[in-house]
Order: sequence, then C-alpha cells, then structure tokens
Amino acid sequence: MNKPTLYTSLSPALLDLYNVRDCIVVVIDILRATSTIATALYNGAKSVIPVDSVEKCMRLGRDMECITAGERDGKVAEGLQYGNSSFEYPRSFIEGKILVLTTTNGTRLLHMALAKGATDIITGSFLNLSAVCDYLIKENKNIILACAGWKDKVNVEDTLFAGAVVHRIKAGFTINCDASNMAQCLYEQAKDDLYEFMKKMDASHYHRLMNFGLERDIRHCLAEDVANVLPYYVDERLVSLRSSGG
Amino acid sequence: MNKPTLYTSLSPALLDLYNVRDCIVVVIDILRATSTIATALYNGAKSVIPVDSVEKCMRLGRDMECITAGERDGKVAEGLQYGNSSFEYPRSFIEGKILVLTTTNGTRLLHMALAKGATDIITGSFLNLSAVCDYLIKENKNIILACAGWKDKVNVEDTLFAGAVVHRIKAGFTINCDASNMAQCLYEQAKDDLYEFMKKMDASHYHRLMNFGLERDIRHCLAEDVANVLPYYVDERLVSLRSSGG
Repeated sequence: MNKPTLYTSLSPALLDLYNVRDCIVVVIDILRATSTIATALYNGAKSVIPVDSVEKCMRLGRDMECITAGERDGKVAEGLQYGNSSFEYPRSFIEGKILVLTTTNGTRLLHMALAKGATDIITGSFLNLSAVCDYLIKENKNIILACAGWKDKVNVEDTLFAGAVVHRIKAGFTINCDASNMAQCLYEQAKDDLYEFMKKMDASHYHRLMNFGLERDIRHCLAEDVANVLPYYVDERLVSLRSSGG
Repeated sequence: MNKPTLYTSLSPALLDLYNVRDCIVVVIDILRATSTIATALYNGAKSVIPVDSVEKCMRLGRDMECITAGERDGKVAEGLQYGNSSFEYPRSFIEGKILVLTTTNGTRLLHMALAKGATDIITGSFLNLSAVCDYLIKENKNIILACAGWKDKVNVEDTLFAGAVVHRIKAGFTINCDASNMAQCLYEQAKDDLYEFMKKMDASHYHRLMNFGLERDIRHCLAEDVANVLPYYVDERLVSLRSSGG
C-alpha cells in the first residue's frame, strides 16, 4: 500500500507548487501567529478567527464583541487591542472568548491556502507539536507543511518546525521532497537547544524580535508541547480538537 | 564601512523578493547546467550561449554552426545534438567551439534574472567554486546566490553550493538572510562527503539521475575546483574569465 505523501513549502510564494486540495495543510508561523493561536485555544478561547486585514479585524471586533489582536511588522497594529504574544492570553483573560487575529505572515498564508482550495487546515507550532503529529499520523492523508516565512522569505524557525514534524512522522509517509529532508537535517542539528541554534544562525526574525525586547516570547515559542491542542479550521474559525493525550 | 549584502534565493519562484539590479547574480544549477557550463569553458569552448527554448537552440545551431545541447526533464531534448553532461565536453571535442545550451532549470533562471534587470551574472558550480568565491571577494559587491532548483522546487545540491559559497566568503559580507545561514549549516554537515550526504538526504534529483544511470555525473558535479573558470555573462553568452589562480 502506498503511504501518503508529505511536502514542505518553505515560503508562501512556493505554495502554488503543491496541490493543497487533497491534503492536510499545516500552517506554520512560529514567531508568532500559530504559537499565539495554540496558546489562546489551550487557555480556553472559544475560537480564533484569523483574518487577513486590520480593517476586517476591527469590523468583526465591533460586530461580534470579540477581542481584536494582531501585528504588522512585529508590532501591535494600530486600531487593534492586543498583540501577537502568547503572554497576552492567559486563561484568566481569554477563557470563553473569541479572538480575532491578523498577522503579517501566518493569517495571510492561511487565507492563501483557502483561496487555493484547501479544505483541511490546521495550525502548527512547537507549543502543540505532539498534537499536530498525532493528528497527522492518525488521519494518514497527504500533507503539506506550509511555512509562513517573513514576507515570502524563508525563515529558520518555520523551517525547523517543519523539520521537527518530519523527524517525528516520516516513517508513515512518502517524502520525495528535498525541502522536507533539509528541514529535518536542520532540526536534528538544532533540537537540543532551539534557542541557541536560532542565535547561532543569526536568524533574522530572532534579531527583529530581540530588538523589540521579546526574548521571553522567542524562548516561549520554542518550547515543545506546553499548549498541546489541535487548532482546526472550520466555519471560518480555528477551534480546538484536543489531542487524545491532552 | 558597510559590507556588501549577500542573499540566497532558494528557488526561481523566490527571485522576485530580491533586487537583482545592483548586484552580482550567481546562477546555480549543480545537476547539471552550471557544471556543464564550467566544464565546457574550462575545456576551451569559445563561449556557451544559454537559451530558454529548444527551438531557439536549434535555430542558433543552424545559423551560427554551433554545437546544440540541452535537456528537458533530465534527458537530451529532441532535435538537439548533445546532452547536459560534463563528460560530453572533453577538450578534444569542445575546444574553440561555441556551445548553445538549453536546460529545464538553469538556463531558464538565467533568463529570468536578465528579464528582471540583472546586468552582472556569473554561473557557479562545485567544479569552479574557488573561481566564483575569489571573484565575489574581489568585486566586493552585493550578491544574490540564485538556486535553480527543480521546476521551482528547492533542491539539496543547489542549496549546498550556496552554503559552500557562504561558508567561504561570509567574513566579507552582511548576511541578514536565513536561507543563506541555513544553507551554510547544511553544507557544514555535508562537506566531508557531498555525495554521501545527497544519498543520505534521499535527494530527489539524486534519484532522478540515478534512474538514468548517471551516478558518475553526480559524483563529478560534486567535485570541487576541477574546472576552475569563471563563466561571466556578456553579449548574450557566457565566456570564461580565468581566476587568478587558474
């Protein structure tokens, strides 16, 4: 029996090379959209609505009485209430609420995948790595690991996460994809200390966030399984499917 | 004084993210266009004319009495005389001749760079790694390492070559580019035995060429400095600028 396929798209600008229709698309934006999504859902948010513009975020916030949040170029976007940091969404604040989120790269990529016909979308981050891998193994469908990057440029942290997934689930999939194999090789170099690796690699996003004083955010976003939910996109929002172990 | 910048574009589909106008563009297609170009020029070809279609290749061959060569999907293209293997171009055959070459990825990328306004284009391969690095250090200009990949997909061997260049010349350049740093990290893992690394990585192009019985070609294309010329694009053709050490 043929195993399902696994491909990694290292940038939104490469997503067109893959057929997103008949597979699970894992949207990856480690710093920080998909980490924030995992945290908010883990801490009891009813749902996270990813939108692709600040205007839409504000409109939904008014119409539905949700919390509006998002960033442009790494800072809280003007007109929105909150930013794109996991630390802004403790259980005491977010439980039972709806979060409307727009970010430079991650939410934009999710909408690109939708526009290309994807029907099966989840989001992945180190915070929910096991939930993502468990789900992908259980579903046994073709997979595209879709990295958000930074304005279409490939980045280290999203690539490392793709590599982490490949590292864990490769036995069950046909991987005829150099990007996946390279990502896995990098992850194996990095896995003992992802933060140190980011620093050593002089990662561009590491610098960008360090300049905003966000070291704590970066460290948090590289911690495995501390918000181990499965954000699944349905009815225009991300809701949590708790993993079997969660 | 600011150092010039160095960026790596891992796929032709990402080239748009970089400004090719004010820099040296290094076109990289290890298996096998830029390896063949280095070999033909090293063995005394007068020039190599890269063209983007089989038809144009045949027309130039007739009009100028050149040798026509090229591949589509890894095999000699119908209507052309020769393929895309270094072993087809020994000195006894190619010396003093003009080679017109068209390939699936490498020559196409060169024409993309031209269309985007690049004016300073060289081609790189392991066979002429030192000549490329010496030239880039001497020129001290901004650099884009442009990987041809395979039909816009990222591949291992072009990424490794970009990493080899970064590894050698990084001290002289500002590298705010995750793709460059990741490529270098992969090269450092691979450098003791590039062929074994390709095999271990299950590289897709490795399989493609192995299926055509081209192991000898792959091994040859991973050998450093055995055809140490600098192919430079001028007047619609690539000519050899011999490196100072060559």
